[in-house]
Amino acid sequence: MKKKPIRHRKSNASKKAGLPPGSITYIGKERSEAAILEMISYNPQELSKVKYDTCAELHKNMQPNSVNWINVDGIHNYQLINEFHDIFNLDNLLLEDVSNTNQRPKVEEYENYLFLSLKMLRYDEVEKTIDSEQISLVLSKDYVISFQEKTGDVFGHIRERIEAPKGQIRSKKNDYLFYSLIDSIVDNYFIAIENIGNDLEDLEDEIFNDPSQKSLQKIHAYKNILLVLRRSIYPLRESVNKLLRDNDKFISPKNIKYFNDVHDHTIQIIDILESYRDVVSGLKDSYLSSLSLKMNQVMQVLTIMATIFIPLTFISGIYGMNFETIPELKWEYGYYYFWAISIVIGIGLLFYFKKKKWL
Amino acid sequence: MKKKPIRHRKSNASKKAGLPPGSITYIGKERSEAAILEMISYNPQELSKVKYDTCAELHKNMQPNSVNWINVDGIHNYQLINEFHDIFNLDNLLLEDVSNTNQRPKVEEYENYLFLSLKMLRYDEVEKTIDSEQISLVLSKDYVISFQEKTGDVFGHIRERIEAPKGQIRSKKNDYLFYSLIDSIVDNYFIAIENIGNDLEDLEDEIFNDPSQKSLQKIHAYKNILLVLRRSIYPLRESVNKLLRDNDKFISPKNIKYFNDVHDHTIQIIDILESYRDVVSGLKDSYLSSLSLKMNQVMQVLTIMATIFIPLTFISGIYGMNFETIPELKWEYGYYYFWAISIVIGIGLLFYFKKKKWL
Amino acid sequence: MKKKPIRHRKSNASKKAGLPPGSITYIGKERSEAAILEMISYNPQELSKVKYDTCAELHKNMQPNSVNWINVDGIHNYQLINEFHDIFNLDNLLLEDVSNTNQRPKVEEYENYLFLSLKMLRYDEVEKTIDSEQISLVLSKDYVISFQEKTGDVFGHIRERIEAPKGQIRSKKNDYLFYSLIDSIVDNYFIAIENIGNDLEDLEDEIFNDPSQKSLQKIHAYKNILLVLRRSIYPLRESVNKLLRDNDKFISPKNIKYFNDVHDHTIQIIDILESYRDVVSGLKDSYLSSLSLKMNQVMQVLTIMATIFIPLTFISGIYGMNFETIPELKWEYGYYYFWAISIVIGIGLLFYFKKKKWL
Amino acid sequence: MKKKPIRHRKSNASKKAGLPPGSITYIGKERSEAAILEMISYNPQELSKVKYDTCAELHKNMQPNSVNWINVDGIHNYQLINEFHDIFNLDNLLLEDVSNTNQRPKVEEYENYLFLSLKMLRYDEVEKTIDSEQISLVLSKDYVISFQEKTGDVFGHIRERIEAPKGQIRSKKNDYLFYSLIDSIVDNYFIAIENIGNDLEDLEDEIFNDPSQKSLQKIHAYKNILLVLRRSIYPLRESVNKLLRDNDKFISPKNIKYFNDVHDHTIQIIDILESYRDVVSGLKDSYLSSLSLKMNQVMQVLTIMATIFIPLTFISGIYGMNFETIPELKWEYGYYYFWAISIVIGIGLLFYFKKKKWL
Amino acid sequence: MKKKPIRHRKSNASKKAGLPPGSITYIGKERSEAAILEMISYNPQELSKVKYDTCAELHKNMQPNSVNWINVDGIHNYQLINEFHDIFNLDNLLLEDVSNTNQRPKVEEYENYLFLSLKMLRYDEVEKTIDSEQISLVLSKDYVISFQEKTGDVFGHIRERIEAPKGQIRSKKNDYLFYSLIDSIVDNYFIAIENIGNDLEDLEDEIFNDPSQKSLQKIHAYKNILLVLRRSIYPLRESVNKLLRDNDKFISPKNIKYFNDVHDHTIQIIDILESYRDVVSGLKDSYLSSLSLKMNQVMQVLTIMATIFIPLTFISGIYGMNFETIPELKWEYGYYYFWAISIVIGIGLLFYFKKKKWL
Repeated sequence: MKKKPIRHRKSNASKKAGLPPGSITYIGKERSEAAILEMISYNPQELSKVKYDTCAELHKNMQPNSVNWINVDGIHNYQLINEFHDIFNLDNLLLEDVSNTNQRPKVEEYENYLFLSLKMLRYDEVEKTIDSEQISLVLSKDYVISFQEKTGDVFGHIRERIEAPKGQIRSKKNDYLFYSLIDSIVDNYFIAIENIGNDLEDLEDEIFNDPSQKSLQKIHAYKNILLVLRRSIYPLRESVNKLLRDNDKFISPKNIKYFNDVHDHTIQIIDILESYRDVVSGLKDSYLSSLSLKMNQVMQVLTIMATIFIPLTFISGIYGMNFETIPELKWEYGYYYFWAISIVIGIGLLFYFKKKKWL
Repeated sequence: MKKKPIRHRKSNASKKAGLPPGSITYIGKERSEAAILEMISYNPQELSKVKYDTCAELHKNMQPNSVNWINVDGIHNYQLINEFHDIFNLDNLLLEDVSNTNQRPKVEEYENYLFLSLKMLRYDEVEKTIDSEQISLVLSKDYVISFQEKTGDVFGHIRERIEAPKGQIRSKKNDYLFYSLIDSIVDNYFIAIENIGNDLEDLEDEIFNDPSQKSLQKIHAYKNILLVLRRSIYPLRESVNKLLRDNDKFISPKNIKYFNDVHDHTIQIIDILESYRDVVSGLKDSYLSSLSLKMNQVMQVLTIMATIFIPLTFISGIYGMNFETIPELKWEYGYYYFWAISIVIGIGLLFYFKKKKWL
Repeated sequence: MKKKPIRHRKSNASKKAGLPPGSITYIGKERSEAAILEMISYNPQELSKVKYDTCAELHKNMQPNSVNWINVDGIHNYQLINEFHDIFNLDNLLLEDVSNTNQRPKVEEYENYLFLSLKMLRYDEVEKTIDSEQISLVLSKDYVISFQEKTGDVFGHIRERIEAPKGQIRSKKNDYLFYSLIDSIVDNYFIAIENIGNDLEDLEDEIFNDPSQKSLQKIHAYKNILLVLRRSIYPLRESVNKLLRDNDKFISPKNIKYFNDVHDHTIQIIDILESYRDVVSGLKDSYLSSLSLKMNQVMQVLTIMATIFIPLTFISGIYGMNFETIPELKWEYGYYYFWAISIVIGIGLLFYFKKKKWL
Repeated sequence: MKKKPIRHRKSNASKKAGLPPGSITYIGKERSEAAILEMISYNPQELSKVKYDTCAELHKNMQPNSVNWINVDGIHNYQLINEFHDIFNLDNLLLEDVSNTNQRPKVEEYENYLFLSLKMLRYDEVEKTIDSEQISLVLSKDYVISFQEKTGDVFGHIRERIEAPKGQIRSKKNDYLFYSLIDSIVDNYFIAIENIGNDLEDLEDEIFNDPSQKSLQKIHAYKNILLVLRRSIYPLRESVNKLLRDNDKFISPKNIKYFNDVHDHTIQIIDILESYRDVVSGLKDSYLSSLSLKMNQVMQVLTIMATIFIPLTFISGIYGMNFETIPELKWEYGYYYFWAISIVIGIGLLFYFKKKKWL
Repeated sequence: MKKKPIRHRKSNASKKAGLPPGSITYIGKERSEAAILEMISYNPQELSKVKYDTCAELHKNMQPNSVNWINVDGIHNYQLINEFHDIFNLDNLLLEDVSNTNQRPKVEEYENYLFLSLKMLRYDEVEKTIDSEQISLVLSKDYVISFQEKTGDVFGHIRERIEAPKGQIRSKKNDYLFYSLIDSIVDNYFIAIENIGNDLEDLEDEIFNDPSQKSLQKIHAYKNILLVLRRSIYPLRESVNKLLRDNDKFISPKNIKYFNDVHDHTIQIIDILESYRDVVSGLKDSYLSSLSLKMNQVMQVLTIMATIFIPLTFISGIYGMNFETIPELKWEYGYYYFWAISIVIGIGLLFYFKKKKWL
């Protein structure tokens, strides 16, 4: 379990080495599903939601006075991604980033559109891993495109709100949809983090009660998960910050406050992550000191037993000797004296250990 | 006990995921008390203090030439909070932050008012936890609003000073009241910190005298408490700093010095917090080396006992053997020689241990 | 001993909570001595040094063409401090900082004067604690005021130089006196630090030779002392830097170089402090590994003794058995063979331990 | 194995001490191969690839309307490097940096050319070391020069793309070739890092299953390798960043996006490096706690054995004594009682250890 | 050995406390050698190298059209240093810094000259200490002054190059000499660092093979040496950087590249220092885990011996008992059965330990 966060990270990065720039190379997990291309066009009055086979077809059906949300599930489909270059005129370097599932979250402003790459994170509670999916968003005057690795996303709430005839979102523009998509992804980070928090508490109990080598492996696994989260969220914060600073071209001033809100959320997530990092490093300390404590207890038991019986055994050894003249052996109550002395020594040592707080 | 600071943190954050922005959702502990809405209006001549049921009613009674301090206890009352949007025209995103008890301290300037969110912290000396309450302050030309999670606050001194007919505060404006509320909250941080400092000293004594696994749990508990404090106070410092830099619109220049003073106090608190962090991490080291020391002592006892008696037992074993010819057994004073040798060996080893400083 | 630096820090900070701003509240140790108010007025020709009972009286006697150095010993005297507000027109917030012995070093420019708060530090070599005293300096065109907690200071050299008729200082202005006071305090930091350095070397020897739990307590005590120093000196460096950048109003350009020099000294002190921090954390490592080493030695002694005698004891046990037919017991030289075997085993094991470098 | 990364670093740095600046001194490994000087000149129509013996000869053959890529394998050839000063007018300080294999990656703009020094890194999977080679690139209006330490590089793909008649690269200018060379080197970093990642996972398994002192040496070796990588890649990021900011003179604006892409890659590599650092430091913790765990197990075995048999041995010792009157010895079933008691004690202790989870 | 770097640091710093500013007080080691005052004047045509007794005499002999390099060995000579104030008009604060051997490296621009203070470091390979000497350089239009603590320096190469009639340096100006002196000192840092690197490798071998308390002391000694180096080189880098940024007045633009080169070297040295810091902290970990490993081995030996022989001794004890009826004692082959059982138990336990990898 533990290694997945690392493994996922570097998968196939070397596939790209040596290719010319702007090479659209999908480097994520191999997928066989067909890619899905769908457009939702809406304005306060109208709404249409249609799947298309080709980009060209879709492009013809774009509504001039509506918000056109084009969603692509399946960035492993090279031909489809390439069509966006031909038909939507998206830059090849941008599309290279779209297909590169290792892409670090970033924002880039092109002449006619704004590009934001970020991660959709879901915490798999059974496997205790982070399921990270690359999402790329393109915002232009005429459309919003969202590229996803696979079917299934966190945009369900947004679709519902669009489909509700009186949803606030229906009366808003592209930039608000763009914001809503980002916000939806960021809100899901909170859920992932909350689950991790619960798991960390369980782990804490385990470590205090019964620390084993497995506990240590779990600690490392969570440390790695937090690293993956950090790597996704820190650059996102910078990106959103850059959006706030620079992009008055694609985002209307009155919507800036929404992006401000997203920025606040990323800061809050980072705060929690940092505190979890502290928790995890505290867990490691607890683990190590649990080991030490246990060792101490083991040693105390050994010492108590040995310290009590070693001198007694010596005494019994003395009277097992075969010297011709050992006067005590002839005493009538010698054997009983032996017991008396043994019991006195034993009880004396027990008191001594009591005083030392070893018992 | 130990986990509360974490648990409190993430409570219900996920409730908000998927909701449209500006959704006023209370995510703190569930509360059933009725919310309280009160306005104190004062100027040098007059003073009124009235509870209202609705915002509308309150709004009608606002005094144009007075400082109007509106205090709301109970941000879990969705209807009430919403009225502030309708009647005072407060932005929905602002009210969302008011209801979000996880909100990070922040300051935001809107067109007609200034918004400051901060935490009221009280250290519960019995439970050894930080009781954190979300306070939101709104400052406009006409009023100051304070939103609290629940009844009971640290503003008692301010109410008294307002009620005193010749209080300096009576002759001051909104911005001074706004300052006084912040100052009052920040002053209470000092009390919380002082209590923690006392507890840390007790813990230090405990660790040096009788370290147990409970001590470690306490160390982690205090570490978490300090984390909670940091998360509340660092952003507050930034916020107050931002107030100092940017907001000449709502704060008159001659009162800037008061906010400067608050800023100084937050820096001082952060200084103390940082030093407590060092203290806590020093405690962990002390705990671990206390364990090591104890282990050393246990091992020394074991080694002393074993080293003295193991050779003696061997000697006694020799003369317990049944060889037909063991000349020593026939010696008249053999048994006494045995004792002499045993005592010499024993005392010799004791001197050796003395020299090694094990005794 | 160890806790004083912490304890001193937070003493009574909570006394101030709830008071209106500008409340002059002395929060240091309780003192009963009478406060002393003295003014030294000098110019190249003249010199007067008089004690006064009230501020008003002193104010009347200020010399217009001289440097007037007003020194106050005893900031616990509320009435006296208050008089400075009435007669010298010092701001109440400034005087609040003067009386607050927890005040962080800072510089503040007011309209008619410059305020610098800093710490006078003396290392008590017997108690191994830092004796920290709050000094506040006010520089205006007409006077320099120095507020001290108690009688006794590090300004003796300055007084001597003033009293020497041809002292360079006599021909200089207020700003040079202001500099001299700061310089004198900063120079004393070097002495405190030198003493700590010597103590750290002694502690290092102790830890390598005979580590005990007391050593660890001392390490923590020095760590705390260094923390106190840091908290005093870092903000002072910032303050002096701020003086250098901003205050051409009270400091003449040709004296800037002196303040530059002080700034250099604070940087140098911080350098040394940082290296002492490293030394102290190295001491802790040494302490822990001293413990481990000692444990190793103890264990080796135990293992050597047990490993040699346990098999020998077993052999002696064999020939102590009462089986009817143990042929060896009948051998003429059986007993001597036993000794031979025992000695061979014993020496063999000693060689083995020699090879393992345990001896 | 472990020390190579350090050793390589400081080799011969002192050779340069005392020489006048601009002294071209090769300080890397001694090499005896002849240096190779080759020029590839291309434009969309034409392509030539010729080896030359001297710089002068090469210079005569430079094509005015082509991209001229001059590649030098063998910076240990002092005469050859010097010719670049005489014929290409390259600054002596630049050539000093070219020959200094310890040169930190840097970019420098000269009047007529741009100089970039960086490292070509290859991970030797057998030796587990980083093979670092110094590459220096010079970009001018007329040519691109690449200086390498030895034959063999990562530019194979670029040569292939140049030789392909319709390669995009053929229609581009010097700056694009310059970018391609950098990109090619940076892409190879990903391969090195991926290999290290795999090795780290193997090491992790080893440490959890069978930690030995060799594991620790390996951990240090990887730590050193990561240090070498950091030292190569951090300054490269800065350098590329500087290129992005300042150098519109040699890089056409429409190609800036390619350098932006390289910059992104360096950031991504740094991200991975940082996470590997965490992994390596986690491995060290695992190693230490593996040792502790093993110690605990050893101690438990010892304690169980000793605790069970020491009291039993005492009992057997009692009935080995030779007192004249030991009544139990006369009992008919005394011997069987002895066994019964021994078995009861033995089993009782086993249950006790079971309860303590030592078994 | 270990403490010298600290001791050297703070020597006599307190001597200066209480003196007026600009007091030229030598605080280094006491020296009795006579100070040496020498001037080398050169231009492309001429060269003179003369020792002088007084500054005044030297000043008269300065050559107007030559580079005048004045070298002073012996800053402990108060009168001589003071003459520089009288005759060369050097500021007293500057001369105070010249005599203060604890002076942190710094650069300062005065009206007529530029002042640079730095450290000449030599690593004493026998004593394993850093020999640090304070060098102060003054650059004006007319001369370069170098102040040294004592005779013997690293400027031999420069003198040789000056004396060589066609040396490049002869045709250059003051600023180039100034650069050459700095460069020469910085180049020597590389030698010091290379030696330390070699020593660290030896120490690493020692720790892996035979860790003792001396190893730990050595680790601390190297840590302190690296601290001393850091404290000398970090501020030097800043100073050179400041030179690069600000001082076009004394350094001609065409020579800026040389200072750039020195700056690069300081960065490279800092890089190496940082990596050595990591190496040293890795050594401490290795030391501690070497101790743990050794402890584990000791414990394993003890446990193996005890576990094998303790039960056997118990068995032999059984048949040493004197019960009247122990049937086994009567068996013909009882003694041989005993041996058989003992050998089976012994071998069984050995297999068990083999399986546990303790053997």
